[in-house]
Amino acid sequence: MRVESLDIEHEIGKLDWSREPKGLYEPIGYALSAGGKRIRPRLALLGALAVGGAEEKVLPAALALEVFHNFTLLHDDVMDKAEVRRGRPTVHIKWNENTAILSGDQMLIEAYKLLGNVPEDKLAGVLRLFNKMATEVCEGQQLDVDYELQEHVTIADYMKMIRLKTSVLLATALQIGAYIADGTEAEQQALYEYGINLGLAFQIQDDYLDCFGDPATFGKAIGGDIREGKKTWLWLSALQKEQHLQTLCGKDVAKTLRVYEESGVKEAAEKEIARLTALAVDNLGVLKDSPAKVELIQLAEKLLNRKS
Amino acid sequence: MRVESLDIEHEIGKLDWSREPKGLYEPIGYALSAGGKRIRPRLALLGALAVGGAEEKVLPAALALEVFHNFTLLHDDVMDKAEVRRGRPTVHIKWNENTAILSGDQMLIEAYKLLGNVPEDKLAGVLRLFNKMATEVCEGQQLDVDYELQEHVTIADYMKMIRLKTSVLLATALQIGAYIADGTEAEQQALYEYGINLGLAFQIQDDYLDCFGDPATFGKAIGGDIREGKKTWLWLSALQKEQHLQTLCGKDVAKTLRVYEESGVKEAAEKEIARLTALAVDNLGVLKDSPAKVELIQLAEKLLNRKS
Repeated sequence: MRVESLDIEHEIGKLDWSREPKGLYEPIGYALSAGGKRIRPRLALLGALAVGGAEEKVLPAALALEVFHNFTLLHDDVMDKAEVRRGRPTVHIKWNENTAILSGDQMLIEAYKLLGNVPEDKLAGVLRLFNKMATEVCEGQQLDVDYELQEHVTIADYMKMIRLKTSVLLATALQIGAYIADGTEAEQQALYEYGINLGLAFQIQDDYLDCFGDPATFGKAIGGDIREGKKTWLWLSALQKEQHLQTLCGKDVAKTLRVYEESGVKEAAEKEIARLTALAVDNLGVLKDSPAKVELIQLAEKLLNRKS
Repeated sequence: MRVESLDIEHEIGKLDWSREPKGLYEPIGYALSAGGKRIRPRLALLGALAVGGAEEKVLPAALALEVFHNFTLLHDDVMDKAEVRRGRPTVHIKWNENTAILSGDQMLIEAYKLLGNVPEDKLAGVLRLFNKMATEVCEGQQLDVDYELQEHVTIADYMKMIRLKTSVLLATALQIGAYIADGTEAEQQALYEYGINLGLAFQIQDDYLDCFGDPATFGKAIGGDIREGKKTWLWLSALQKEQHLQTLCGKDVAKTLRVYEESGVKEAAEKEIARLTALAVDNLGVLKDSPAKVELIQLAEKLLNRKS
């Protein structure tokens, strides 16, 4: 069930990137037109609806969150030298690296321009929440880089990193929506925590599907993380049980998957995803019943059962 | 004469960059500790003082402007592959390119965090002015890139580019200072225009010194712009008089300088710098006399007579 409301895709399409100089704005329009689930602006609207507020006032912040998210993708793709995003060449491939840097910078500024349209009595508060979130996302990205080079990474380290890199943006989207719509502190906090747990579950599910997804529906080759030597939740959990994992499996997908199954790591991941999803749903307990609350619960459940 | 007031260098030094993760924050501290004239925050404070206001309220915005300026230098240095800045290795040389991108992003966010400390009744207005400025600076940088590849660039094009890339940041610093200090619309506009003209004069003076500066005091080799084939004010002016300039001079410094002298372009540049400086001083006419106004006038005159 999806609450009838503002069409985010349509609102994003109304943003005008035909401005001059074209070299600056065209890549922004390109990056934003790639689609995606638009989950962050949707969460901002649901944050407002879930506390009984109107979503119109939240729209500028919702759009700012989506533009910010796409800014992080644009710069992350440069840093990761990723060549494809959502089936199309990334901006630094289609144009060049300097364009990706400068248009990315402008996208971050555009996010703050959209925030400028937040109702004035809420502006200082929204700016504070947004800045805290943006800082944490950059810190999470830095930790991700650090962990690649760092020999000892614990599961706690990993959880901290995905919390910053993925969860806080979802959580802050919900909180900002509730804040603008005059939700109580308790409601804002509950929605924030729901977003945190949803993000953690989502990321571990990502790691899980990379190993155990159905090749027919997953969309990319199974075992990419293993081949790249990524320190995922599954890898770090297996490492706790088997210190010599690296020597035993190297980057061999079949061997690693066997260890994950035989050591119970696969099952542990399933349990952890289910636990975090249940926690997220529990967090919503303080909210009054509403169609928005139902949508949030279904979103968590859909996540648990997704195949790609 | 320098008005006794807040010590910007000291205030910048109080910003704490010892936070974790170090890989994100150390480069920011490094970039901000390089010194420089701190002209932009000084202009913000002078904007307040010149309209009879107190400078303390302007401090957060003044710091935001300096952090923003250094963010643009950091990313520009990546894009220009510049290896040295203020006598030290640039961030992407001392660390790496990805660090320069991500720490630069965080610097831009830090600028907005500082803006969050602007008095709440002025926040929406300051955010609007700051966002407009930041957008124009990126547009100016893009035009600079575009003009390198573009065959026909007029002096009007060039003036538009340096207005966006250099002047609007100086102008907006002054305007924001005056705005926070409750200056009238006319005062704000006068200070803004002063900043625009000051910036234009400064940039053309930069081009001029690159050709006719005293090698003993200029700090770098004379003729760098000519050797790089840059479309400066002098080059574009000479091109108006001599269509075959490229064929005649190529990138030969001595030949080009001779054309600049013989065609009157050198003298025209001197006149243009003096004209813009006089315009800047004229813009201050609507302000009441004050030590801050005297400092602004002296700043423009010092600029006119600078050797490096």
